[in-house]
Amino acid sequence: MSEIMRVGIAGLGTVGAAVARLLRRQAEALTARTGRRIVLAGVSARDAAKERRADLSSAEFFQDPVKLAASPSIDLFVELIGGSEGPARACVETALAHGKPVVTANKAMLAAHGLHLAALAEENHAALAFEASVAGGIPIVKTLREGLAGNSVERVYGILNGTCNYILSRMEQEQLSFEECLKEAQRLGYAEADPTFDIGGFDTAHKLAILTSLAFGTRIAASAIDIEGIERVTLADIDAAAELGYRIKLLGVAQRTAEGVEQRVHPTMVGKNSAIAQVMGVLNAVTIDADAVHELTLVGPGAGGDATASAVVADIADIAKGVRSAPFGLPTAKLAELTRTPMRRHEGGYYIRMSARDVAGAFAKIATRMAERRISLESIVQRGKRGAPGDCVDVILITHATSEHLVREALDLIDQDGVIVSRAQVIRIERE
Amino acid sequence: MSEIMRVGIAGLGTVGAAVARLLRRQAEALTARTGRRIVLAGVSARDAAKERRADLSSAEFFQDPVKLAASPSIDLFVELIGGSEGPARACVETALAHGKPVVTANKAMLAAHGLHLAALAEENHAALAFEASVAGGIPIVKTLREGLAGNSVERVYGILNGTCNYILSRMEQEQLSFEECLKEAQRLGYAEADPTFDIGGFDTAHKLAILTSLAFGTRIAASAIDIEGIERVTLADIDAAAELGYRIKLLGVAQRTAEGVEQRVHPTMVGKNSAIAQVMGVLNAVTIDADAVHELTLVGPGAGGDATASAVVADIADIAKGVRSAPFGLPTAKLAELTRTPMRRHEGGYYIRMSARDVAGAFAKIATRMAERRISLESIVQRGKRGAPGDCVDVILITHATSEHLVREALDLIDQDGVIVSRAQVIRIERE
Repeated sequence: MSEIMRVGIAGLGTVGAAVARLLRRQAEALTARTGRRIVLAGVSARDAAKERRADLSSAEFFQDPVKLAASPSIDLFVELIGGSEGPARACVETALAHGKPVVTANKAMLAAHGLHLAALAEENHAALAFEASVAGGIPIVKTLREGLAGNSVERVYGILNGTCNYILSRMEQEQLSFEECLKEAQRLGYAEADPTFDIGGFDTAHKLAILTSLAFGTRIAASAIDIEGIERVTLADIDAAAELGYRIKLLGVAQRTAEGVEQRVHPTMVGKNSAIAQVMGVLNAVTIDADAVHELTLVGPGAGGDATASAVVADIADIAKGVRSAPFGLPTAKLAELTRTPMRRHEGGYYIRMSARDVAGAFAKIATRMAERRISLESIVQRGKRGAPGDCVDVILITHATSEHLVREALDLIDQDGVIVSRAQVIRIERE
Repeated sequence: MSEIMRVGIAGLGTVGAAVARLLRRQAEALTARTGRRIVLAGVSARDAAKERRADLSSAEFFQDPVKLAASPSIDLFVELIGGSEGPARACVETALAHGKPVVTANKAMLAAHGLHLAALAEENHAALAFEASVAGGIPIVKTLREGLAGNSVERVYGILNGTCNYILSRMEQEQLSFEECLKEAQRLGYAEADPTFDIGGFDTAHKLAILTSLAFGTRIAASAIDIEGIERVTLADIDAAAELGYRIKLLGVAQRTAEGVEQRVHPTMVGKNSAIAQVMGVLNAVTIDADAVHELTLVGPGAGGDATASAVVADIADIAKGVRSAPFGLPTAKLAELTRTPMRRHEGGYYIRMSARDVAGAFAKIATRMAERRISLESIVQRGKRGAPGDCVDVILITHATSEHLVREALDLIDQDGVIVSRAQVIRIERE
């Protein structure tokens, strides 16, 4: 190995500039740790002239990131452009094809093309590292790939989107509506002008797809994820959750089942005293259930320039030291096809909130439909509905473990019975 | 690298047997991950005939662990004998001298001889790995050494002893005395017959010494740790803590200061809503404050055969893959001498509980002494002392940040004033 490692960064947004600053600030320590001098030799960005609060004097500027990726003047390529296609994909493929190690934070690209890129890395004997793609500064990729190498993982789940966690935390703490908290998140820069990607659960799904592959040794399968966002969570749900000993979080969950792997993203009731329930605001957290270690939880910043740069630089340092891990922990030929367990086969507890007509026998009808489907109830709360016409009551049920398809059948029948006035709110419960 | 890696394990207690089982159970997965077949080729234990619920059929038995360490029939040596001297040290030195990589869970040995062993490993181009020595199944060594390679650590602190955390948790939850909870812990096998090593804070100190070296790039300095155990924590303190918004945990804390590094182990008040306060029972947790990642917390099992074996096997897998990290993250020549910041220079908030004589002016005297030392008070609680003679009151003070030596001076003066009846209880407050 050469004494110097020349790094090229494509994309100089918040994260890219933070990586440039960190490489300089930690230059001496990184040399001591890795035995090599890590130098920023090239950068690429849309606007060469923009002020970035980072010293780029050692770096050659490339208008075209693909040219940077192919340049003989760099030994390692860092992709921070974003997006699953276009220049991001083109330059990562180019770098790998030239046998250059790649570090990326691009979850969308990995969710869509992770297997293809891992195979390309393998063919060209180049590293492909992506610690920064999931949960920002939390070293969850390293933990799953290396730290738990002796474990068989049963389940991995986490709060993977800070925007959603911020909104849900604020709704509870300030007793505000979803819409109000979303506006506040947008004002503070925690949510985009078009927030669909975050609040719809799609960002969480991309990250979950990566975690699933690492945890279960399966080929990445982002299209096999059942996704629900947080748009329909109301303050009534959040308050009912608190009353019943739960807190609502948007979780990504991947779980081994008898037939395969279940991957799902949805608002989830977690026990109020669980470790994951304590994670408030923009923080992220990931919990792993595995046979040897039992349960491990990591909590930290899921986004932000410095935290994400911390993960990027850790990957750079590993590559500088010559660490060679298969991108998803196993050679691509050994990654198994993921057998999807469909959502209707999901087993677990359920929170169900219905607006029932306040007529004689309405509740009896609901209870009967549940009983017919052998769904047993842990808690029942019935009360006048806040701010609603006097002829409606809120009925809240917490079920014992049952099957999703039984819940769906029972709710369809209750709907047909005409005893509820709108679609029932259903939130799955996740046990520790 | 040869396709097969032959492992020798010295010490077949709970952890050793669990490692043997895990290597067998995960044999296929480990081969897929590392590209090598990992075989248990040799074992050593005091009693060859003992039943261990582990298949040792592939392993040659060695009466003498040093002979196993030197044997040409093994490629990697796992030391699980324990103790800082004697056979454990002899066989680790032998294995390293023979150029064989060593994996150990031996915190006492590392705290005493870590630098010497790291230098020996370096000279002989052999790996020395010890993930299992701190916080059992939590991959904290890997996180500090590799995952945060781009960070400058400001502080690392944690709950590193499950016995103490179990006792403190039970005292609060069941409103029992320290002595009752200790007995219960002994009955359940969480505490030794002679519990001094755990409850006196010495076990925590060994682990902290290792974390400090990894976090700050300093030579291990276990003798430079200020240690207080949990023996003097009373139910009155635990209840007062809860009332004031805190919970008491035995923490190991290493913190960068203006002059050097402060290393301390003591009962600590942590904010009731902090991540670390939620960690109850035998669990361990470590929080790292660092410049780029800001704050990262890892929570998991700190002991137990399987969890500890998980860490041992992860080290074995890394070595099988050819990962080469300096044991403490830096070449030993680059590890700096640790400049100790003495405890009297410690800056922070304090909880002080005193039994004051219920005479006119007693409290005024106490308040005056505090004011003379420029110690400002955040909270003051005074109340009749439970079960004590009527002429005493409990005075509880929470101070704003101040210096340890000022607190000590003020308390000495209060003592001399004759207004308190016994030594004041002092518990440091740790801010998130």
